[in-house]
Amino acid sequence: MPTIQITLIEGRTPEMRHRLISDVSAAAAQALEISVEKVTVALYEVPADNYGTAGVPRALA
Amino acid sequence: MPTIQITLIEGRTPEMRHRLISDVSAAAAQALEISVEKVTVALYEVPADNYGTAGVPRALA
Amino acid sequence: MPTIQITLIEGRTPEMRHRLISDVSAAAAQALEISVEKVTVALYEVPADNYGTAGVPRALA
Amino acid sequence: MPTIQITLIEGRTPEMRHRLISDVSAAAAQALEISVEKVTVALYEVPADNYGTAGVPRALA
Amino acid sequence: MPTIQITLIEGRTPEMRHRLISDVSAAAAQALEISVEKVTVALYEVPADNYGTAGVPRALA
Amino acid sequence: MPTIQITLIEGRTPEMRHRLISDVSAAAAQALEISVEKVTVALYEVPADNYGTAGVPRALA
Repeated sequence: MPTIQITLIEGRTPEMRHRLISDVSAAAAQALEISVEKVTVALYEVPADNYGTAGVPRALA
Repeated sequence: MPTIQITLIEGRTPEMRHRLISDVSAAAAQALEISVEKVTVALYEVPADNYGTAGVPRALA
Repeated sequence: MPTIQITLIEGRTPEMRHRLISDVSAAAAQALEISVEKVTVALYEVPADNYGTAGVPRALA
Repeated sequence: MPTIQITLIEGRTPEMRHRLISDVSAAAAQALEISVEKVTVALYEVPADNYGTAGVPRALA
Repeated sequence: MPTIQITLIEGRTPEMRHRLISDVSAAAAQALEISVEKVTVALYEVPADNYGTAGVPRALA
Repeated sequence: MPTIQITLIEGRTPEMRHRLISDVSAAAAQALEISVEKVTVALYEVPADNYGTAGVPRALA
């Protein structure tokens, strides 16, 4: 606790995804004044066909 | 806001997924009396081995 | 299948939430060319303190 | 109802995933004293680069 | 890992929710052949106005 | 995009939750090299009866 779930468009390098996990975990732990050991992060990558704002898929935007 | 997340069995064409994003966004905006610009949709496709009702994976149903 | 999850700021009337469930279910069924009986919707209401874009909680925006 | 969503590291066999769906559905139905027909399970598999505790991606742990 | 998220209609006793967490965790650990220490469960309770199948809110069904 | 969802035990002050939204948004934007305007965060607070690791609800731990 807490559990952090991040949905993002696929295509980032493993290094960028590792950094995302590391930096978001650290930020959450600091904001909540808890140990980073308590934080879990999962990334859900979706293709640009599967994500859209205002009804427009990212693949077409 | 709102954020809409849809889990579905993989295998639909990009065109069908685009239409799903578009139509669900429009329906949500109209029901909530907000601009469609405020609506975000993400689709999570899972294989038929990963989804089941009544304890039976779709792949076996 | 599909399962639709909608996160929204709390405060809508039950009637508006019922309409959201009904209209989004119908739109998804039509877009996916399936029976509406197959669609499940869950609404997750969060307070304005718990939702933000660009780092700004809705409660302060 | 209920809807159960399980995030796990990718790599399990289909047989193990089928058993996970079956056994978790049965356990939930029994604990809630409902029919297993009412239970839906979805599995979200993520690569080891996309999951981490304490800020450390599983791929590096 | 794994992270299990269960959405259910509100109204169960704490004892029933505790049993749900306990039994589902045990079932998942056994199915995946891992220690139960690795399993996390979160329950999301929603009112009957906020959940529906076939477009019909549970509150009206 | 990205959409960040954080599940945590209820009980934090609004100020702490605002800081969590702000700091996690900033960390994600920096790690992904995108504008913070693109980041959305939602917090889902659950009671200690509804969250558990190793099969033990937090309320009993």
